[in-house]
Amino acid sequence: MSGNLNSQTTQEHTSHKVDMKDIVSLCKRRGFIFQASDIYGGINGFWDYGPLGVELKNNLRDWWWESMVKCPPIGPDGEPVQIVGLDSAIIQNPRVWEASGHVGGFTDPMVDCKETKLRYRADHLVIFIPKDSSEPWLAAPKDDEENIAEKRIKKFGKGKSLSAYETKDLTAIAVQDFDKIIGPDASKPGTLTEPRAFNLLFESKTGATQDTTVYLRGETAQGIFVNYKNTLDSARVRVPFGIAQIGKAFRNEVNPRNFIFRSREFEQMEMEWFCHPSEADKWFDFWIEQRKKWWLSIGVNPDDIIFRRHGDDELVFYSKKTFDVEYRFPFTDPGFGELEGIAYRTDYDLNQHQEYSGVKMEYIDPITNERYVPHVIEPAAGLTRGVLAVLCAAYTVDPNRPSGMFMNFHPRMAPIKAAILPLTAKDGQPEIARDLYMSLRNDFMIELDIKQNIGKRYARQDEIGTPFCFTIDNQTSEDKTVTVRHRNTMKQERIALSSVKSWLHENLAIMAQG
Amino acid sequence: MSGNLNSQTTQEHTSHKVDMKDIVSLCKRRGFIFQASDIYGGINGFWDYGPLGVELKNNLRDWWWESMVKCPPIGPDGEPVQIVGLDSAIIQNPRVWEASGHVGGFTDPMVDCKETKLRYRADHLVIFIPKDSSEPWLAAPKDDEENIAEKRIKKFGKGKSLSAYETKDLTAIAVQDFDKIIGPDASKPGTLTEPRAFNLLFESKTGATQDTTVYLRGETAQGIFVNYKNTLDSARVRVPFGIAQIGKAFRNEVNPRNFIFRSREFEQMEMEWFCHPSEADKWFDFWIEQRKKWWLSIGVNPDDIIFRRHGDDELVFYSKKTFDVEYRFPFTDPGFGELEGIAYRTDYDLNQHQEYSGVKMEYIDPITNERYVPHVIEPAAGLTRGVLAVLCAAYTVDPNRPSGMFMNFHPRMAPIKAAILPLTAKDGQPEIARDLYMSLRNDFMIELDIKQNIGKRYARQDEIGTPFCFTIDNQTSEDKTVTVRHRNTMKQERIALSSVKSWLHENLAIMAQG
Repeated sequence: MSGNLNSQTTQEHTSHKVDMKDIVSLCKRRGFIFQASDIYGGINGFWDYGPLGVELKNNLRDWWWESMVKCPPIGPDGEPVQIVGLDSAIIQNPRVWEASGHVGGFTDPMVDCKETKLRYRADHLVIFIPKDSSEPWLAAPKDDEENIAEKRIKKFGKGKSLSAYETKDLTAIAVQDFDKIIGPDASKPGTLTEPRAFNLLFESKTGATQDTTVYLRGETAQGIFVNYKNTLDSARVRVPFGIAQIGKAFRNEVNPRNFIFRSREFEQMEMEWFCHPSEADKWFDFWIEQRKKWWLSIGVNPDDIIFRRHGDDELVFYSKKTFDVEYRFPFTDPGFGELEGIAYRTDYDLNQHQEYSGVKMEYIDPITNERYVPHVIEPAAGLTRGVLAVLCAAYTVDPNRPSGMFMNFHPRMAPIKAAILPLTAKDGQPEIARDLYMSLRNDFMIELDIKQNIGKRYARQDEIGTPFCFTIDNQTSEDKTVTVRHRNTMKQERIALSSVKSWLHENLAIMAQG
Repeated sequence: MSGNLNSQTTQEHTSHKVDMKDIVSLCKRRGFIFQASDIYGGINGFWDYGPLGVELKNNLRDWWWESMVKCPPIGPDGEPVQIVGLDSAIIQNPRVWEASGHVGGFTDPMVDCKETKLRYRADHLVIFIPKDSSEPWLAAPKDDEENIAEKRIKKFGKGKSLSAYETKDLTAIAVQDFDKIIGPDASKPGTLTEPRAFNLLFESKTGATQDTTVYLRGETAQGIFVNYKNTLDSARVRVPFGIAQIGKAFRNEVNPRNFIFRSREFEQMEMEWFCHPSEADKWFDFWIEQRKKWWLSIGVNPDDIIFRRHGDDELVFYSKKTFDVEYRFPFTDPGFGELEGIAYRTDYDLNQHQEYSGVKMEYIDPITNERYVPHVIEPAAGLTRGVLAVLCAAYTVDPNRPSGMFMNFHPRMAPIKAAILPLTAKDGQPEIARDLYMSLRNDFMIELDIKQNIGKRYARQDEIGTPFCFTIDNQTSEDKTVTVRHRNTMKQERIALSSVKSWLHENLAIMAQG
């Protein structure tokens, strides 16, 4: 009926710079995301998802699960690939984390500032070094390094500009040069300690006498590796195949920041793809293409997403290559922040668990009888970071509306698909609205909102990104029609009350195709 | 077409006693549930959900969410009630748990056995007292008290039978009588200590210098109470309304047991219903009726479920009344184990958080201007316990099948809705099977299983409870028909390949109606 009513594209709105403060404020005001324990002053690094936030997060979660487990992609041979799901416990036998290297072995190096008592992850600091002087070197945290560096240069740089500095990661700087560095929040050089190991895993104790130290998982991936054997033995899968998992993970980040971007409790969507070592390169390329497509399917502007191969200097030792999906968040702009890493992890993890558990991880090919430990490609995405990207992408400034903005959610992501609004609370309008709500709610997430000035109710629906509003008015009881208001264009049209369900199915589908 | 092909009812199968060992074994063999960290010898009280278990759990989760948040029930006034969702963090400000009484105040009393060094929750022990002698009293853990008591009586009871004993909860016994009791695993009387407070919450530390003690939530409910105010201020709700949440909770149970029934990491589905104090009784009765209906909608035998009002002696001090939904698990038979508690919690929780946080929890009625702290009715269900009930209810012994049994899942709960099985891997059969799979998978969770003897493949589908199998054979390419095999009756019929999708929609719906 009206595909072109929805024709405002996602491209337009990025011309307006969006401020994170506005997004955080909208999220609280409309019930997307609250500070955890808000009434107790919060707790640093933890967030609660309100009525709309949980629907948005569930929509993203379900779309990933559908794309991975229910309808996995078609492989290079034209056949659908095999992926099965998993939900492993957050707390596992502590040996899991010894094998993975998260405890005992390598941990994250931290530096402390002796002046401010603040602590930083060494790999999160960038050092700005004057190109042609012996003036102090200036440290700034990654994610927002240029903004902070500019302020620090204004203070300590004697009129220099950013271009007078070159940058190096702190991890690339010799410890004997640390006394030249002014810490990110310090007032004089030489206050940063040398990096020291610090374990980001949350520790706890289990057992009737609390005698066993356990860890809250720092990633969902290890839960998959330890279930590789049981899955292979119970599900009807053969290599190559994947195991997918969505769930919470915990890291005691030294500096949680940027809203839900770097929090201490977060959610991941990880898939481990087990394949023959000789086919790993092919599958690595395959998953990069699939994951590119997926991220573009949730309504983010293609100009705000980059796909970036890691340089050799960025790789962790067990990864042969890694590819990042990154989004231009307001706090990284013009830079980007990570949404997903696609890593070729070789047979590192399965070999580690084989060595630590004594359980053979070999796969025996049923046709060739070849025995080998599969290699792994891991597309590991952040669910909560994905939610933040969807929120940032949807925020659209529009001075022509009472709310001054609207949330341009992809219809698949929109927490509410349609609102039903009787114009007044009399003349049988609430009853018609209620009947319409009852006829739609099995098919769609619907909001029935009876009272308040209609302009305020439209403003609310704009702010929460509801694609369509159906308004019941005086005319409805006469000619059995309702008004549809289109979120993106604010245009209104009348359609038959009896056709609302099929109209909504059709128009959400049209809108989803863009 | 064939509603009566599915006519085997759920009633029949409970005549066969099912052994928990068979259920646990099936769960591992077919990939429903594995011991967490199985390759490391497990970890007591933690479980992983494999490919089929995660689908089953998600089906139960999504059905609860649909019944609560997307399509909430019709209230006593004929209008749909208002319920919104929430997903709060597992880790909250520790003050939350002081206000709730989980730390600092009351904790669970434990008794230790000096002989065996084992620890028990005091409220989990039942004492069997000889009616007419001064012989030792015998302790047995609840959930399986009669089985264990029988064995203990055989050992210590001098030929007495169970009927020669009366029972009392340990918590009802005076400490000076403890020296008459033989502990559940002890060899002589007088080894149980008096009850001591023991906190079931898992502790951890957060912060860059790990200076703040935090707790893994022991229930999802407190996350709702601390978000009551933000939800009221941001969502379009008025009292009465509900906030629903599904998520993990953790309790360091002294004796985790009975598979996933009592584990240390588990999932809850809780809804807090906020209402006017004068209407609390009405809503308490309303939610009892709703929850009864819901538990009967997932395919459990009505004879195996009881609905039970707590006696005054069972109530915690802040609850005016509580109602339990209980299931007859194999390990409780002929008794029952709790699936859900529906508690009238009064204004206890909101008052506690008001006092501890200083934030007003009053609601101002927009029509009458009356100010009051709402009272709360809480239907609090176990998601993972629900999964166990569904598994136990579905397990159906049938000597007429190669597998000796089948899983009689309600179609809404079945992890896989249909399997597609080409009879041989040649003559174009796999290609037809693949095309059929591709045409169905957007609508249903489908398993495409190409290879192996067809009898073994049917056996697998029986064991995982797939309602229908579509078999492609030689005739398919000739007359474009497939064979449908009905799980419950094993009857087969031929239907047109082109009608499979509509046939499956229709027959799953018929089967769901029973």
